[in-house]
Amino acid sequence: MTLAVEAGMTLQVARQHAAAAGLSLPILLGSEASAQIGGVVATNAGGSNVLRFGMARSRLLGLEVVLADGRIWKGLRSLAKDNAGYSLSQIFAGSEGTLGVITAAAFQLTPLPRQTVTVLAGTQDIGAALRAFRRLRSGSAETMVAAEYMSRAAIKVSSSHRFNPLAAALSEQDGVLFEWATTSDTADFEPVILEALVVALDQGDLIDPIVAKNEAERLAIWSLRDTIGPGQGDAGYSVKNDVSVPVSQLVELVERGKKAVLEIAPMARPIVYGHLGDGNLHVNFSPAAKADNLRLQEVEADIVETLADVVDALGGSFSAEHGIGQSKRHMLAQRRPGVEIDMMRHIKAALDPAGILNPGKVL
Amino acid sequence: MTLAVEAGMTLQVARQHAAAAGLSLPILLGSEASAQIGGVVATNAGGSNVLRFGMARSRLLGLEVVLADGRIWKGLRSLAKDNAGYSLSQIFAGSEGTLGVITAAAFQLTPLPRQTVTVLAGTQDIGAALRAFRRLRSGSAETMVAAEYMSRAAIKVSSSHRFNPLAAALSEQDGVLFEWATTSDTADFEPVILEALVVALDQGDLIDPIVAKNEAERLAIWSLRDTIGPGQGDAGYSVKNDVSVPVSQLVELVERGKKAVLEIAPMARPIVYGHLGDGNLHVNFSPAAKADNLRLQEVEADIVETLADVVDALGGSFSAEHGIGQSKRHMLAQRRPGVEIDMMRHIKAALDPAGILNPGKVL
Repeated sequence: MTLAVEAGMTLQVARQHAAAAGLSLPILLGSEASAQIGGVVATNAGGSNVLRFGMARSRLLGLEVVLADGRIWKGLRSLAKDNAGYSLSQIFAGSEGTLGVITAAAFQLTPLPRQTVTVLAGTQDIGAALRAFRRLRSGSAETMVAAEYMSRAAIKVSSSHRFNPLAAALSEQDGVLFEWATTSDTADFEPVILEALVVALDQGDLIDPIVAKNEAERLAIWSLRDTIGPGQGDAGYSVKNDVSVPVSQLVELVERGKKAVLEIAPMARPIVYGHLGDGNLHVNFSPAAKADNLRLQEVEADIVETLADVVDALGGSFSAEHGIGQSKRHMLAQRRPGVEIDMMRHIKAALDPAGILNPGKVL
Repeated sequence: MTLAVEAGMTLQVARQHAAAAGLSLPILLGSEASAQIGGVVATNAGGSNVLRFGMARSRLLGLEVVLADGRIWKGLRSLAKDNAGYSLSQIFAGSEGTLGVITAAAFQLTPLPRQTVTVLAGTQDIGAALRAFRRLRSGSAETMVAAEYMSRAAIKVSSSHRFNPLAAALSEQDGVLFEWATTSDTADFEPVILEALVVALDQGDLIDPIVAKNEAERLAIWSLRDTIGPGQGDAGYSVKNDVSVPVSQLVELVERGKKAVLEIAPMARPIVYGHLGDGNLHVNFSPAAKADNLRLQEVEADIVETLADVVDALGGSFSAEHGIGQSKRHMLAQRRPGVEIDMMRHIKAALDPAGILNPGKVL
């Protein structure tokens, strides 16, 4: 039920290794063909199944790490429980290579799902999407693996990039994607999910749901979601934000965030989508017209900071799953309490006193 | 879906707060009436639902901590995703008060379960229990919340302490307790579980299963398990071990562990039980006869070290969920690689340079 792999292996290959043993490494990234295990751990990667399985750190059991002093920590244990001292693996997860170089990782696996139900539905706005999510999840918390929101603008850029008939089926509504999975091959799974779905329809929060009848239809639904990123690239310069708030604040995030940004950047067109169930949305902006490309680019920093102000006011994070790197270093220093930054600096100094590991990143 | 509470609140009261909102804080400890939230986090508590919900750190979203320099870190965020710098909450979780004093914690909650199935069955030995566990879990990974093993010796001390008719029903076999829970009130839950159970019976790994028909019967099953600890107290001096190994090594742990200890302490009677699904067993020892009480006590240190040698050889941990404290400090220093201890010392020095926090513990 565990898998230990070298850091240079791609997530895709690692997942194939798990599947060959009849098991799942439930970290689901669009970039799995290029994402390497070392990076997945070092950035505490998120993805589309965080709702059910947590971020990369929740799957992590042990690590092998080359330290700043050249020594190798052989901590590749495969234990569900190990309270012998501080959890060093958890310190390296999400540290973006600034505390050590991860060379191998051990993960907890889960049995492979045997039945999956994937639904795409129209929804009036983020508020309706959230109500439907909450109602559906309260009766299927253990099997709901994904809950993704797509504004109608996001759907539009997606289907402009790659034609998808599902975009038209949503008839100019926002969209919401739910997926459920169970390891049971005997449970009468789909009928129970659809029964709950009918209740959500009766409440008016979901419209015209499409239930994938086979894997091809399932992939078409996911393609609509996964093509938003590439699609936004066609629409000119992209200002990207990866922010999170408590799920209860999602409506405020979208309303206040768009309003605040449009006040300072009226030429910006919001492209909002993301992981509804995690309170993690990509509140992105494209130019309203091609002619606005340069003007949008010029106010990028203002847009990012304006949105981050809204996020901070709602108790959120300006970096939900993408990390700090170089470009958000100043934001970390400015937006987190001094005492927090001090602790991070002390930990950095403790494990990399000469500052030789990934210099100029995070802190 | 989150709960922020003060560190002095008991786990029981915190769980009641969650339940009043229709939600669950899925940390299940026998000691919930006395265990305080600060301690639950500081020790990264485990318990009976780790199989499904992970240890305390997996529920943890944010913390408020008083630091060694007297400053207060207000990190009580309630975000499922926050990759803005190092995860400080994860560093304090399991640090046993040696890095800071936790004063409040925010947790991720889950919807309350609406159907529960609890089964007690006889089983020939840990190997048969493990085969049944694996087969059952492969088709119910998302709903199996507990898988507990009890050797026949453990069952005997339990029912001697508090009479339990279920002990006789197991007819001198080892016992295994499985519990499943779903948030669905519409799924046909129990029949699917029982169908899987029949397969395990056909394979001969489980014998005479008892399915709880109501909450009273469920509590009677759990009482048999939870009374092992108090029951062992009646049997004279107790040598307690809280160890974990990869689940695949559980049979070896029990066989080799008992053999090695009985060689140096023939007067010891093994009392083995614990969290099968987590690879975490309590491999305890009582005196074979009352007259052996003092002799057992005299060889306690040898027993603990002998068992730890077996655990180390199997890639396990000599401290699965109970932590280090004072009594296992020397074991941490001796049994973990020097590079690992060095890292822990550097982190300790970074956050508590004068060593004023819980001195003499962990390191």
